[in-house]
Amino acid sequence: MNVTIGVDVGGTNIVCGATDEAGKVLRKLKRPTEAHAGHEAVLGRIAEMVAQIREELGAGIRVTSVGVGIPGLVDPRAGVSKFAGNLKWRDIPVADLLGDRIGLPVFIDNDVRMYIYGEAVAGAGRGYEHVLGITIGTGIAAAIVNGGELYYGHKALAGEIGHVRMDGVEEECACGLSGCLETVASASGLVRQAKKALREGRASLLNKWFPGEALERLTAADLSKAMDAGDALAADIIVRAGKLNGRALAAAASVLSPDVIVVGGGGALAGERLMAPLREELYRLLLPDFREGLKVVTAEHNDDAGIIGSSLYAAHRNGD
Amino acid sequence: MNVTIGVDVGGTNIVCGATDEAGKVLRKLKRPTEAHAGHEAVLGRIAEMVAQIREELGAGIRVTSVGVGIPGLVDPRAGVSKFAGNLKWRDIPVADLLGDRIGLPVFIDNDVRMYIYGEAVAGAGRGYEHVLGITIGTGIAAAIVNGGELYYGHKALAGEIGHVRMDGVEEECACGLSGCLETVASASGLVRQAKKALREGRASLLNKWFPGEALERLTAADLSKAMDAGDALAADIIVRAGKLNGRALAAAASVLSPDVIVVGGGGALAGERLMAPLREELYRLLLPDFREGLKVVTAEHNDDAGIIGSSLYAAHRNGD
Repeated sequence: MNVTIGVDVGGTNIVCGATDEAGKVLRKLKRPTEAHAGHEAVLGRIAEMVAQIREELGAGIRVTSVGVGIPGLVDPRAGVSKFAGNLKWRDIPVADLLGDRIGLPVFIDNDVRMYIYGEAVAGAGRGYEHVLGITIGTGIAAAIVNGGELYYGHKALAGEIGHVRMDGVEEECACGLSGCLETVASASGLVRQAKKALREGRASLLNKWFPGEALERLTAADLSKAMDAGDALAADIIVRAGKLNGRALAAAASVLSPDVIVVGGGGALAGERLMAPLREELYRLLLPDFREGLKVVTAEHNDDAGIIGSSLYAAHRNGD
Repeated sequence: MNVTIGVDVGGTNIVCGATDEAGKVLRKLKRPTEAHAGHEAVLGRIAEMVAQIREELGAGIRVTSVGVGIPGLVDPRAGVSKFAGNLKWRDIPVADLLGDRIGLPVFIDNDVRMYIYGEAVAGAGRGYEHVLGITIGTGIAAAIVNGGELYYGHKALAGEIGHVRMDGVEEECACGLSGCLETVASASGLVRQAKKALREGRASLLNKWFPGEALERLTAADLSKAMDAGDALAADIIVRAGKLNGRALAAAASVLSPDVIVVGGGGALAGERLMAPLREELYRLLLPDFREGLKVVTAEHNDDAGIIGSSLYAAHRNGD
């Protein structure tokens, strides 16, 4: 049996997994990234993880190639991480450096594209011709898969839906623009807004749950819990985020006409709390012809989508 | 020499032209559409026009196929005009009916896609990998050409940028939604807004130029003239339309990352009056990486782009 290995390099952890041709995860490892040690140390760690997985798989199973999903700007053809803020990487030739270490073909791409690629070919988008995927996490980004092929656009920059300017949003974005979708509609945007409202004295269950300094520990999952407990602040913030995502997706869908929209990332764990207002706003803003055909679903492999996508992408690019 | 014929079926006129493989127009005819006579009469007229062009081209030139651009919803694979409001067509199998009349392969598509296809392969988008085109006319629509191939999306509905909801726009749209880009930023939207403001008594040169009933004859070109003469009302309306188009394009470009945006249609005849605010708003809303690479240009073949595109599309689909 031929298998491929997918690697998801995050700011906090590296996840590395082997999958079969259908995207089934056979082995999986997780290690802290420790990006402060520099890119050579991180690539060394990935090489060790790949070696360990190969050993665990045993001699009968041949690993043909490795795919790596990296945050930030990636040149997938050259195999270079152009810029990854979290990792402090700039112009790192990851495919070559890692390929030399492990003696296998290495293919890299942006982590969101890998995630959505996995969902498109072996997850919630399976069987659809035109997949528009969005991940709602620390930021918000999209990826487009048509007929099983990722769409890249000029300089491989396609997918920056998180930086579409939304009316009524004034927040400054880390990108230098203001009013970007991700400032308020990402998982971290939810938390930031809640903290701000609580510090300004807005009434909420969250004041009891996270008194004083404890507020620093607030997560998006806590907002979901508060919403379930009837908290108006949490509901306002989550519903608004759902609507804004729906609105940005309506603009994208009107131009692209996808068959399906797959919503993933940590933000998607809010489930119907976020998805119901997202769908409502999206369908409200679409022409009837679009509305009737377009499916909106949550990702199937939330935790593993990154490694599944990277692994299947490596198989695809390697021509396995 | 092999040539193909392109046909642009409008609500008012049919334009029919033969081009060589590079898109050079060799012969061209124009006739009134007279859509009220029904689709058989219109298709009969197109067949006559094709026959006349073949006769004028002479026996030494072989016409290999015919492409037809039709407004509204088209199923290009089946060759069926699904719905064309202007023509009162619904589910007309144009490719088969016209092919039977003229004895040549006939390929049809939406008129905006044909226009942008012509610009992408033989006009202002020539040489670019990822072309996003927009036509600003009676309505506003977009088309996407990647590597010389039109992108269709689900049900061939891609490109409905004219129905993206714009904040601050409240006008009802003919589509049933409200606040759609095309209600205020299309050529007809410009005229409608000017007429409304003038009827409400707003001061403008246009009151002198089009007194009383004469206002009915106001066109988008007149607004350009008034803007050049220093008229504030005309300038306000055109600049706002430019900005709104820029804003809608910024959202689309953030997701698609085109190499070039081609702006065509009657509205593009306003030139820099519209294009300067369009570019300014577009670049203002884009991430720096996009801003640096993205070209924004006006169409090269405004009048002939439809027949050039239909003709080259027929050659492409016929495998000439």
